[in-house]
Amino acid sequence: MHEFEIIADYFVALTMGREECAELQDDAAVLKIPKGYEVVVSSDTLNAGTHFMKDEAPENIARKALRVSLSDLAACGAEPLSYQLNIAYPQRPQAEWLKAFTGALLADQKEFGVFCSGGDTSSIHGALSVSITVLGLVPEGKAVRRNGAKDGDAVILTGAIGDASLGLQALWKGQEKAYPKAVGRHRVPEPRIKGAALVCEHARAAVDISDGFLADLGHVCKVSGVGAEVHLGANGLAFSVEVTTALDTGFLTMEEALSGGDDYELVLAVPEEQVKKVLAGFKKLGFSPQVVGRFSSKISGVQVFNAEDEELPLKAVGWQHF
Amino acid sequence: MHEFEIIADYFVALTMGREECAELQDDAAVLKIPKGYEVVVSSDTLNAGTHFMKDEAPENIARKALRVSLSDLAACGAEPLSYQLNIAYPQRPQAEWLKAFTGALLADQKEFGVFCSGGDTSSIHGALSVSITVLGLVPEGKAVRRNGAKDGDAVILTGAIGDASLGLQALWKGQEKAYPKAVGRHRVPEPRIKGAALVCEHARAAVDISDGFLADLGHVCKVSGVGAEVHLGANGLAFSVEVTTALDTGFLTMEEALSGGDDYELVLAVPEEQVKKVLAGFKKLGFSPQVVGRFSSKISGVQVFNAEDEELPLKAVGWQHF
Repeated sequence: MHEFEIIADYFVALTMGREECAELQDDAAVLKIPKGYEVVVSSDTLNAGTHFMKDEAPENIARKALRVSLSDLAACGAEPLSYQLNIAYPQRPQAEWLKAFTGALLADQKEFGVFCSGGDTSSIHGALSVSITVLGLVPEGKAVRRNGAKDGDAVILTGAIGDASLGLQALWKGQEKAYPKAVGRHRVPEPRIKGAALVCEHARAAVDISDGFLADLGHVCKVSGVGAEVHLGANGLAFSVEVTTALDTGFLTMEEALSGGDDYELVLAVPEEQVKKVLAGFKKLGFSPQVVGRFSSKISGVQVFNAEDEELPLKAVGWQHF
Repeated sequence: MHEFEIIADYFVALTMGREECAELQDDAAVLKIPKGYEVVVSSDTLNAGTHFMKDEAPENIARKALRVSLSDLAACGAEPLSYQLNIAYPQRPQAEWLKAFTGALLADQKEFGVFCSGGDTSSIHGALSVSITVLGLVPEGKAVRRNGAKDGDAVILTGAIGDASLGLQALWKGQEKAYPKAVGRHRVPEPRIKGAALVCEHARAAVDISDGFLADLGHVCKVSGVGAEVHLGANGLAFSVEVTTALDTGFLTMEEALSGGDDYELVLAVPEEQVKKVLAGFKKLGFSPQVVGRFSSKISGVQVFNAEDEELPLKAVGWQHF
């Protein structure tokens, strides 16, 4: 198949007939921006053998590439608009592969309300490479950045963490069947894009967990000029059933649960008086939000306490100070 | 060097201190769109060994990647806003390489009026891959597309063609010194971004020459539903001194001159009554524009005539009918 045929047969459908894409006949798309909105833009590249297994299913590559980009929009409180898709193929792609890849993208586009506005297909010597640049919309001046956390703000997570890390370990160690949900979360992240409006309205700072909970919370602390204390146990951070089991049996360490990447839950800084509203809002969307700690100007960096309120030595949870 | 150090030491400077980029501390940039404008978006990927030599100088890779993207904006009549830069490295980049690469980008940013709004750096097994997604601004409803050419419109080129193709051949055949300008045009294209306002104001259709003059003009014809006749010689298409020499000596064939890619001049469809103004405007910008033919509803596809007004068999110029 020639490049033009691949585009016509598989990729034009991803524009969902939007006239701004001119059926990918032009080199550029022309996007209308509603009055009073700003454009949020973010890019991610995933490469075979680095970010996903070389023989990973095309559906999973497609979903992961689009979803990790959408997750960045969610953290800014932005609604998705469109995305640009750049794929470099090490060999001519097969029809079956393309069908599965674009089919998965189209399904996710419908779920998350976004269309493909263009991109590029190319040949590469080496590994398959998928780059996505996503564009989103946020009301003027309302984008949520990382640097707004204030003393006393609650640290809210949109869901449980550690699952993606557990999933990856389970795959490595051939324990896929023991931790099916975790493996699923590693393979196909769940961007919290439906929560973007709540983030935009109530969060003073936010980040999505791609590098790991402690690292990403640490980024927020650093640029906000505050510290954060995190509590484990009944009145703090709770793990999923699978992660709890894995922690109990020693299959996963606390370090891995708190520092493993790719969870794609959001961490928010939310003023105390808005916590109830935010939790209720996320629950309504089917998320499992939890308050896991508090930002504080009295400490620097992140401190973690166990259920007995003893501070864990940060080395034990893989923490790197800046 | 760690990814964060590379970003801090080399890439943050490319944001030119724009607050919408938050010093690349966030995963996303937030771009303000002036009232009455639309956003034009286009992507290009260049891979080592496919789009540039494996040992190509970092300055040339940087310039080519940014310039071919800017060229797409010029063809739409859009002014550059920002670009996202995704780089996948096959090995840890050296400080010298990064310095040269980002230095060249910064110089081009200043020349063309654009800043880097973000991107991604990653590791890849195989070849260096550089993807750029460029964002531009165009007044609402004024973007120039490929499908607007009308019967009687002049076919205008913003400069001479065939040079990039000659440059590539010269490199292959070790004749670099005989054709220095052509080699330069192959290595570092000149996007006609300063002509974007003229394109926007006067062109009914436009395309930049990346696939080759005949192919790209053919795309315009196809989606506009017209044909085009192109004239070579004194009253038509003129070549540069180097391409003329190469044609005379048989180093380059007419086929290669008319069909070779990577010239990045623009082809415009301009109504007769505006031709003078357009030519004068481009000349003022230092371009060497030329009227090379006319769109016509009486023919289909592209017809090429020599200086004696004899139609060249299209096979002789490498033409592929759709």
